[in-house]
Amino acid sequence: MYMKNLLITSSKNEKYKELLLLKKGDKEQGLFLAEGEDLYSEASKHNCLKEVIIPESLAFEEIKYSSPIILKDSLYRTLSNYSSLPKCICVCQKKIIDEYGERVIYLDNVQDPGNVGTIIRSALSFSYKTIVLSKDCVSVYNNKVIQSSKGAIFALDIGIDSLDYFIEHNYHIYLTTLDGVDMETIDHLKKPYVLVFGNEGQGIRKEYLDKGEKIKIVMDNIDSLNVAIAASIFMYRFRRD
Amino acid sequence: MYMKNLLITSSKNEKYKELLLLKKGDKEQGLFLAEGEDLYSEASKHNCLKEVIIPESLAFEEIKYSSPIILKDSLYRTLSNYSSLPKCICVCQKKIIDEYGERVIYLDNVQDPGNVGTIIRSALSFSYKTIVLSKDCVSVYNNKVIQSSKGAIFALDIGIDSLDYFIEHNYHIYLTTLDGVDMETIDHLKKPYVLVFGNEGQGIRKEYLDKGEKIKIVMDNIDSLNVAIAASIFMYRFRRD
Repeated sequence: MYMKNLLITSSKNEKYKELLLLKKGDKEQGLFLAEGEDLYSEASKHNCLKEVIIPESLAFEEIKYSSPIILKDSLYRTLSNYSSLPKCICVCQKKIIDEYGERVIYLDNVQDPGNVGTIIRSALSFSYKTIVLSKDCVSVYNNKVIQSSKGAIFALDIGIDSLDYFIEHNYHIYLTTLDGVDMETIDHLKKPYVLVFGNEGQGIRKEYLDKGEKIKIVMDNIDSLNVAIAASIFMYRFRRD
Repeated sequence: MYMKNLLITSSKNEKYKELLLLKKGDKEQGLFLAEGEDLYSEASKHNCLKEVIIPESLAFEEIKYSSPIILKDSLYRTLSNYSSLPKCICVCQKKIIDEYGERVIYLDNVQDPGNVGTIIRSALSFSYKTIVLSKDCVSVYNNKVIQSSKGAIFALDIGIDSLDYFIEHNYHIYLTTLDGVDMETIDHLKKPYVLVFGNEGQGIRKEYLDKGEKIKIVMDNIDSLNVAIAASIFMYRFRRD
């Protein structure tokens, strides 16, 4: 059912060491790991899948994967982030773009991986194709980002860049803040545009606050929304713009 | 600065044992724990605060709390859920209501504590005062629910009830599903109403799917939104209804 040379049984195996480095967020290889069948499907669909890893105990069941890497169960367990083991772990190709379209979602120092993943998921729902992160955001290839994106990370164009790039390239900069104008008073956003969301605690960094047009979601009772919620409401509102 | 009899130094102390039970989710005492100064402020403001606990090492600094319980640092560390220790831990009074207003958010078997907390936070932002949970939802007093609510849990009315209650009491039941009518085609919700959100994987349980009017958020590219995102977009849309 599988060729012996694809079975890794030692933690000293070089290939296995490389995989463990990927788990830790190694940036040299240009690859990342995604766990489970749902992410496998999405990675395949978007041509990001490079290799599939399965545990030895499932090797005779899981014939749907061509040429998987098979790991001894104890090694597989170490490679996974979960106590309930996924049926497969995918080695995926990173794709970072550096040319952006005319409707860009920009995250400025957003730190919570669940927030970043959820924003990516919502972006796909509301026809945003490009997310750009500042360098000091949490890594977009963090395991929790990938999981909470529900595979949307494979469908979107992801960039890592400074907001300066967009200022220099004459994008309209829309800054989401607590003191902006009510977004409902804006009929259409002007293209090309960047819609900027800031850090969970501090918001958008100060040096950019006079570099664009401030807009907000009107709220009744509290000072702030979770950034993933705010971003999703903005994206829903401007999904046709 | 503080009275000796409020200092707990032994893990066998009866009061300390009660506190540890609260951390584990004990339901007998009608109390729950909330950690940190932000939640302290919110709990005080809404008259939910029963006692404040501080670590011995901060006892001389933290003179703003009247009659705090002081714990030996090692005991305090065990009581907290965080490795970075909060400045205080509050013992708070649970308040479960059983009479509901005319605009109710209902959560049917929602399991992720971050989702429940975030929905509570958004509800407060958009003028919803009442959240009712099915019995099989994650506990609303789960530590992660409380933290991600950012204190909104103290400001809202929380109920635990079956959806049957609202059906029997002639509420309009709005079921958020993937096959409903576009919410944008609905001018106003009919009062009194319940806006129902379902489980992260399964959605609203089947037995209720023919018990109300199905509505949805139109999406372009993906089958579903995170439930906290969907709930917040609905609440924003109907914040004046």
